[in-house]
Amino acid sequence: MVLNVGIIGAGRIGKIHVDNLRCIPQVRVKSVSDIAVGHLQSWAKEKQIEVLTTNYEDILNDKEIHAVFICSPTNTHATIIKEAASSGKNIFCEKPVSFSLEETKEALEAVEKAGVKLQVGFNRRFDPNFRKVRQLVQEGKIGNPHILRITSRDPEPPNVNYIKSSGGLFMDMTIHDFDMARYIIDSEVIEVFANGAILVDPAIGEAGDIDTAIITLKFANGALGIIENSRRAAYGYDQRLEVFGDKGAAQADNNRVNTVELSTAEHVSKEKPLYFFLERYAQAYVDEVKEFVTAILENQPIICSGVDGIQAERIAKAAKESLETGVPVKLEQIGQSTAIY
Amino acid sequence: MVLNVGIIGAGRIGKIHVDNLRCIPQVRVKSVSDIAVGHLQSWAKEKQIEVLTTNYEDILNDKEIHAVFICSPTNTHATIIKEAASSGKNIFCEKPVSFSLEETKEALEAVEKAGVKLQVGFNRRFDPNFRKVRQLVQEGKIGNPHILRITSRDPEPPNVNYIKSSGGLFMDMTIHDFDMARYIIDSEVIEVFANGAILVDPAIGEAGDIDTAIITLKFANGALGIIENSRRAAYGYDQRLEVFGDKGAAQADNNRVNTVELSTAEHVSKEKPLYFFLERYAQAYVDEVKEFVTAILENQPIICSGVDGIQAERIAKAAKESLETGVPVKLEQIGQSTAIY
Amino acid sequence: MVLNVGIIGAGRIGKIHVDNLRCIPQVRVKSVSDIAVGHLQSWAKEKQIEVLTTNYEDILNDKEIHAVFICSPTNTHATIIKEAASSGKNIFCEKPVSFSLEETKEALEAVEKAGVKLQVGFNRRFDPNFRKVRQLVQEGKIGNPHILRITSRDPEPPNVNYIKSSGGLFMDMTIHDFDMARYIIDSEVIEVFANGAILVDPAIGEAGDIDTAIITLKFANGALGIIENSRRAAYGYDQRLEVFGDKGAAQADNNRVNTVELSTAEHVSKEKPLYFFLERYAQAYVDEVKEFVTAILENQPIICSGVDGIQAERIAKAAKESLETGVPVKLEQIGQSTAIY
Amino acid sequence: MVLNVGIIGAGRIGKIHVDNLRCIPQVRVKSVSDIAVGHLQSWAKEKQIEVLTTNYEDILNDKEIHAVFICSPTNTHATIIKEAASSGKNIFCEKPVSFSLEETKEALEAVEKAGVKLQVGFNRRFDPNFRKVRQLVQEGKIGNPHILRITSRDPEPPNVNYIKSSGGLFMDMTIHDFDMARYIIDSEVIEVFANGAILVDPAIGEAGDIDTAIITLKFANGALGIIENSRRAAYGYDQRLEVFGDKGAAQADNNRVNTVELSTAEHVSKEKPLYFFLERYAQAYVDEVKEFVTAILENQPIICSGVDGIQAERIAKAAKESLETGVPVKLEQIGQSTAIY
Repeated sequence: MVLNVGIIGAGRIGKIHVDNLRCIPQVRVKSVSDIAVGHLQSWAKEKQIEVLTTNYEDILNDKEIHAVFICSPTNTHATIIKEAASSGKNIFCEKPVSFSLEETKEALEAVEKAGVKLQVGFNRRFDPNFRKVRQLVQEGKIGNPHILRITSRDPEPPNVNYIKSSGGLFMDMTIHDFDMARYIIDSEVIEVFANGAILVDPAIGEAGDIDTAIITLKFANGALGIIENSRRAAYGYDQRLEVFGDKGAAQADNNRVNTVELSTAEHVSKEKPLYFFLERYAQAYVDEVKEFVTAILENQPIICSGVDGIQAERIAKAAKESLETGVPVKLEQIGQSTAIY
Repeated sequence: MVLNVGIIGAGRIGKIHVDNLRCIPQVRVKSVSDIAVGHLQSWAKEKQIEVLTTNYEDILNDKEIHAVFICSPTNTHATIIKEAASSGKNIFCEKPVSFSLEETKEALEAVEKAGVKLQVGFNRRFDPNFRKVRQLVQEGKIGNPHILRITSRDPEPPNVNYIKSSGGLFMDMTIHDFDMARYIIDSEVIEVFANGAILVDPAIGEAGDIDTAIITLKFANGALGIIENSRRAAYGYDQRLEVFGDKGAAQADNNRVNTVELSTAEHVSKEKPLYFFLERYAQAYVDEVKEFVTAILENQPIICSGVDGIQAERIAKAAKESLETGVPVKLEQIGQSTAIY
Repeated sequence: MVLNVGIIGAGRIGKIHVDNLRCIPQVRVKSVSDIAVGHLQSWAKEKQIEVLTTNYEDILNDKEIHAVFICSPTNTHATIIKEAASSGKNIFCEKPVSFSLEETKEALEAVEKAGVKLQVGFNRRFDPNFRKVRQLVQEGKIGNPHILRITSRDPEPPNVNYIKSSGGLFMDMTIHDFDMARYIIDSEVIEVFANGAILVDPAIGEAGDIDTAIITLKFANGALGIIENSRRAAYGYDQRLEVFGDKGAAQADNNRVNTVELSTAEHVSKEKPLYFFLERYAQAYVDEVKEFVTAILENQPIICSGVDGIQAERIAKAAKESLETGVPVKLEQIGQSTAIY
Repeated sequence: MVLNVGIIGAGRIGKIHVDNLRCIPQVRVKSVSDIAVGHLQSWAKEKQIEVLTTNYEDILNDKEIHAVFICSPTNTHATIIKEAASSGKNIFCEKPVSFSLEETKEALEAVEKAGVKLQVGFNRRFDPNFRKVRQLVQEGKIGNPHILRITSRDPEPPNVNYIKSSGGLFMDMTIHDFDMARYIIDSEVIEVFANGAILVDPAIGEAGDIDTAIITLKFANGALGIIENSRRAAYGYDQRLEVFGDKGAAQADNNRVNTVELSTAEHVSKEKPLYFFLERYAQAYVDEVKEFVTAILENQPIICSGVDGIQAERIAKAAKESLETGVPVKLEQIGQSTAIY
C-alpha cells in the first residue's frame, strides 16, 4: 500500500517533512497547501508534488489522502485538527497543539471521536541519545529514577517579533523539555517551580518574556527534576540530559559534526555541538515521520500522542504561573483532567 | 622561621592534616590533643609529635604554638575558636563553624578582635578543577555568569546516628556546595528554594532528614544556580559543576584513578570516579594547609575566611526553611548582617 | 538537467548506491544490470528502476545514460571501465580498480583518452572525521606532518572463500588505509615495510593470507607512517587516525551510535563503535555519490581519481613484497610510472 | 626498623628521590654524595641530611646504610653498582644501567653474587595508567595480545650537548618504551625494525642522532608492536599506549592538570597533557621508591630488575642497528644470553 500524504503549511519545517517523507518508499507526498504558493512552484515540481493549493481544505477533501501534516502557525492547529479528524485523516501536528488547553482538549476529543491517529511533533523523543537513555531507564539499568536534569540552550534567540507571538519561553522552547521529562521518567509531573531571568537581551524582557530559566519539577513517582534553559549559548545548541537513580546514572552528551581532536601549543580542542535543531535533530526528524507512517500502516500506537501534547502544555502553564507568583504550582491546579486523558 | 602547629581533635581529618603538614618543610606539628589519647601513642610517636594531651588548653597555653587546627566535633568549634583567638593563635577550623549563626558570629568577632587569621575548611576551593573554573570566570572567559550547576553526590550515606547530629543534609553536606556556589560566581546568594525527598533510605527520613535534594539559587548579580544532592551514588563520589555565561561555559568533570579505557564485545568502559572525598580531594587537603601556612608566614589573605563560613551557614538555614515552608526564602531574612560581614 | 545513471552489479554495495542516488534530485537511476535478475524484480520496482538486464552492455549502449557505477567483481572492473570509457560514460568504480597494475593502467589510459570522468570508490575520503583531519593539515594547523598513524580493524573476518579471491589483506582491506595515508599527508609513499601475523584465525593462514599487520611507510616529504590492521576487533569496527606535526596533532576517534554514558556500581560505559563499514561510512557513501554527480554536472575535479586508485595498488604490492622478503621495499620498484601518472 | 638510605648524585632526579623518600615513615635519608657539594649545603640542611660528601665511597663504607640510590651520570653506574654490591648495599639505579651490554652484565653478576636487591629506575612501570593496562592484560580482559602501540613524545628536545652524550634516541628516550613494551606484553622482543628521521631540529642530525622514530617489534608470543617517538610535541608530553587482543583493547590516555572543559564561540577545549615527566610521573616517582623500600623491608621481588634493564638495552641496540642497516634485526644477534638472564 502507498500512503498518500498532504502537507498543510510549507515553511521550513513543512519542507523538511517533505524531504524526509520522500525517502520512505511507501509514501507519496501528493499535496501541499500554503497561504501563498507562487514562490513554491519550482520547489513543488522538483519534489514531484502533484497538488499545490492555497486552500488546505482541498487536501482534507481529497479522498486519496490518508494523512496530513499540520505545519501551519500554532493558532491554526486546533481548528485544522478538528476538521482533519472529521475528514478521517490521520494527523501529524507540530508542537504545541495550541496555546489554549481548552482548544487542545477539544481537538483531542475530535481525534478520539474520529478514531484517527494523532502524532504531536515532539521530535526529540526520536533522538538516538535520548531514546537510549529512556531505554536504559525502562530496562532498570539505573534503578528507580531519583533526579532528572535537562540542559537545553539555543544558540541564539529568535527575533523579538517571533517572541511576542511565541507563547513565551515555557510554551515555545521549554515545552520540548517538559515532554522530554515525562518521556524519560515515565511519570507525571505534579509540581513546578520556575525561576526566570532576562540575561541575554533586554529586548526580550521588553517583549514580556524571559530568556533564561531554571525550572524544578516533582514527579508522581517521587523523582525530582531540573530544566535549565537559555536562549543563547555562545558555543551552539546545547542539548544534554542526565537521569540519576539508585543503581546509577545515564547521561546524554551533545553531538558534534566530527570526532576530531586538535592538540596544539594553545590547547586541546574539539568541535562545538551541532549548530541548531535542524542539524542536531536531523535523524530525529527522519525517524519521527518514518514511525508515524509505520504506526498508520501497521496500526501501532503513536509514540507522541495528543495526551503527551496536552500534558506538556499544562506543565508550561504551571511554570508560567510559578514564575508570575514566585511560588511552586501544583499541576492539578492547571486545567481539569477529563475522561479521555 | 618554623611554624609550630597544634591539632585539636585527632580523628580522621585531624590525622590527614598531620600528614599533610609534616610534608611542609617550614612546619613542625608539635602537639595533638584529643578526648582520649591512649590509642594514639604509637601513631604520635611515628609522626614525631612531642606533646599528646587530653586537654586542648595545653596547646592554647603553649607559647611556642603559632597555629591550631580545630578538628573536634562541630558543637565545640565556636568555643575553641574564641579561646584560641584570645590566646593569639592563628586558626584553621573545620566546616561548619557551628550550627548556630549567633555562635558563629561571636566566634568571628573574637577572631576579628584578636587580629589572628581564621581559615574555614572548605577544602573544595583548593581542588584544581574548581579552581580552574573560578579562574576562567574571573578572567572573563565565559563572560557574565548566567547559570551555575553543581552536582554533588556521595557514594553512600553516613550512618543514621551521625545524621541525627549532623545538622541535616543542607548543613552537613550541601554546605560545601553553598560555599562553592559563592566561590565560583563571586556574588552573594539572595534567594533559595529547596526541594527534598527521601529516596535513598527511609531510615534517613525517620531520623528527620532528607537524602535527595535540588536547591535553586538566585545571586545578587542576577545569575541563577542549581545544586543537586544525593546521599548515595552507586558509581561513587560525583563532584561536577558547570558555569554558563554569555561567552560560553566551563565544566569540571569527575576525576578518575586512571585514564584507561577498555573496549570489549560488551562495551567501552572506564574507571568510576574516585571513591569519596579522601581520594577526590587528596590534593585539595594538601593545598589548603599549605596555603594556610603561607598566608600566616607571608601575612597574606585567607582564601576561605570566617565570613565565607557564616555565609554558607546562612544559605543552609534558608534552604532548610524553604524545604519546611515549600516556598522560596530570601537570604536577608536569615540572620542579620553585622558591621564586620 | 537530469543525470541518468546505470548500475552494473546489484550486490550489497550496488544497492546502497541506488538508495543514495535516488535521494539526489538531479539523478534518475534508470538501469541496473546483474548476472542474474530474477530475485531483483520487486526491488527494482520499488526503486522505480526502468531497465533491469543481465547484460551490462545494454547500459553502455543506452545513449540516455550519462554515468555508470561499476559494482561487479574486481576481476571485471578493468574491462568494463575500458568499454564504458569508449561509450563515453562517466565512471564510478568500486575499489580496487583491478588486481593487476597493468590492467589498471590500461583502464586509466582508456579513461584518459575518452575524456570521461572516473571516480574510484575510496569512500573513506568523504568521511567527516577524516576530511576534517585533512583540512586541518592543509590549513597548516598541525604544521609539517611528521607521523601519521592509522588504526583500521574490522569487526570480523570475511569467510575464507572470500579471502582466497580477495587479493590478500593488503589489497582487500589495507588498500583503503594506503589511500587514506596519501589523502591525509598529500605526499607519495616511497618505502614500505610490512609485518604480518596470523593471530585471528588459522584458516586465514591456510588460505595463504594474514589477519594482523603493521605496516610502516616513508613519504616523499619526509613524514613517517604506521598502519595497524586486524581482521577482528571484538568491540566492532575500529577506524581511527592521528597525524602529528611540528605544530600539533589531530586525531579522529570512532563514531558511536549515541553519546550516552552509563555509570553504575561496576563501571562507566558507553556504546561501542558503529558496527561495520555500512554503519560507520553511511554518510560517506551518500557524499561520495553526491560529489561524483556534482563533479559531472559542474565539470569539477574528482576527489578520488584513477591515479589515486593505481597508487594505492602499488603500495599494496610493495607491502606484500615486503612481507614476503622481510625487508623494506621502495615504491619505485613497483610498476613503472608512465606519462599520465 | 628504619631503612637508612644514601643518595649518590644530587642532581634533579636525586633530589626528587630525597623528597619522596622523606615522606616514607620507615626511611631516613642519611647521606648524600655529589662531585661538588658547596651549593647543596642549605638544601641538605632543610632536608635533615646528616652526611654530605664528595666521595660516594663514604656512603658505601657506612655500615648503617642499607640502600643506595645511584643517580650519577650513566657512565658511572656499572662501577658503582659493582662496588655497592660488594659493600652489601641494596641498589636503586637510574636507567639505563650502562651504555655497554658487557658492563651491564658484569654489574648484574656482581649484584647476583652479593645477593642484594637491584631496582632499575623504569619509573613508568609504576604509573597508574600503564599499571592498569598491564593488570587488564594479566587478567585476560583483552585476551591474547595481538598489537601493542606506544606513543611517546617529549615536549621539547634536550640541548644538543646532552644529545651527544645521551647514547642516542633509542638508548636515552625509547629505552623507557622498550621496557614498557616488555612490561605490558610480558613476552620478550625477538625482532626490531626502526625507521628514523630528523624532522624536529637539524642540529640533532648534525650531532649524529635522530629526533623522530617509528619502531616495530615482534614478540616471542606472536604479538606485534609499534613505538612512535618524537623529541618535540607542541602540546606537551604525550604518553599513551594501547594494547589490542582477541577479546578487546585497553588504552591509556594522557593525564591533564584538571578536567575542565571550556566551550566558547570558537571551540570546545580542555587542558593540554601534563607538561613533562616530572609532572606526569610524579606519582610514579613516589611509588617506585615506596615499593623499592617495601621490597627490601619485606624481602619481596623487585618490579624492575636488572634483567629488565639489560633487556631494554638489548632492544635499543637492535633498533640502532636496524636504523643503520635499513633492515629488521633479530634480538638473538644482540649480546649473548648468559645463565643468569
